[in-house]
Amino acid sequence: MPNGKLKTTPRTKLVRNPKRAEYDRDVVNEIIDATPLCHVSYIIDGRPYVTPTLQWREGSTIYWHGSSASRFLRQIVDQEVCMAITHFDGLVLARSAFHHSINYRSVMLFGQASKIGDAEKDQLLHSFVDNLIPGRWENLRPMSSKEAKATTVFSMPIDEGSAKVRTGPPVDDDEDYSLPIWAGVLPITQVLQPPEPDPKNPAGLEVPAHVRDFKLG
Amino acid sequence: MPNGKLKTTPRTKLVRNPKRAEYDRDVVNEIIDATPLCHVSYIIDGRPYVTPTLQWREGSTIYWHGSSASRFLRQIVDQEVCMAITHFDGLVLARSAFHHSINYRSVMLFGQASKIGDAEKDQLLHSFVDNLIPGRWENLRPMSSKEAKATTVFSMPIDEGSAKVRTGPPVDDDEDYSLPIWAGVLPITQVLQPPEPDPKNPAGLEVPAHVRDFKLG
Repeated sequence: MPNGKLKTTPRTKLVRNPKRAEYDRDVVNEIIDATPLCHVSYIIDGRPYVTPTLQWREGSTIYWHGSSASRFLRQIVDQEVCMAITHFDGLVLARSAFHHSINYRSVMLFGQASKIGDAEKDQLLHSFVDNLIPGRWENLRPMSSKEAKATTVFSMPIDEGSAKVRTGPPVDDDEDYSLPIWAGVLPITQVLQPPEPDPKNPAGLEVPAHVRDFKLG
Repeated sequence: MPNGKLKTTPRTKLVRNPKRAEYDRDVVNEIIDATPLCHVSYIIDGRPYVTPTLQWREGSTIYWHGSSASRFLRQIVDQEVCMAITHFDGLVLARSAFHHSINYRSVMLFGQASKIGDAEKDQLLHSFVDNLIPGRWENLRPMSSKEAKATTVFSMPIDEGSAKVRTGPPVDDDEDYSLPIWAGVLPITQVLQPPEPDPKNPAGLEVPAHVRDFKLG
């Protein structure tokens, strides 16, 4: 169903038109940074696949990682991929079925996936953990070289893509506003619940500041 | 990073092995029914794309809809697509970076997208609205034939796919459990917030039962 207050940044080379691109880039970055979850689309033997994974951004590069044994990651080396990052912010209830919609923020990025070499990988995995849970890395048992080897990191420049954002109440046909039909928004938010300690934690271990202070997005 | 308590249903023809398939189908259906949001992957000119949209299930068929003018929907008629439905349920904090993970429920479905003909479409749009917001349809201004024409519905049989579910605390290396590192889960849930009435609603209109009683999933 069509969108009401929809702001779209057209698919664009985000680096070309400097003025427009900087606006686009801010919108895109904000949507990317608000969740680690993304969906990566790729092709195997001429067929489309989509896999959910975790991403993080550093400047104008987006990264994701996974097991070195993953078919998905072995397949996409130097291949074209499309990544979507989507926030589902609410149901929009209009006076007609047709004008029902959802509030959302979404980004689509296009580009070629590059596998990160060993020299850069350790630093990136450190950044990933601290990006996901700030302050976590320094509290951890150090990563072994075997673990680093079992992990693959990919990058893609954030230079081609688009963003779509819909906010606010429904937009109905003029003549429908006088109907006695309740219209509005059912907002949906992602909420962090209280930390659940591992039952195997040593007795007396307190929730550390970096866990207590963690915020989504 | 690898998964701890991960249950996977392998990619399978969900109709073949009746005993196994029925278990798979229950897991898959439960994940599908818990959110309308999905990501559909498809190919245009040899390049992968992924688009977020809303899905609903009736029996062993999955449906999604959109504007008849959408490039995405014009492109996928009778084409192979892959659909992902993903719930991000929490961050899993382990004693090592390597064993960090997320709790999640996800489904990947594979198949050919069929465009629904006009004869079936009206009934399906009715089902869609009542599936998304039970009781909504009967309160709405009826759909016009122009609106139905502007909307396209697609279907795909739910007969090839897989589910992955990770729950519970981290699974660490045996020797790491004695380390004084807080480990556990930061649970994340999608929460419905109080309804926000459209400021343009007629004065005195109360929140109807189907809105007040709405539940996510």
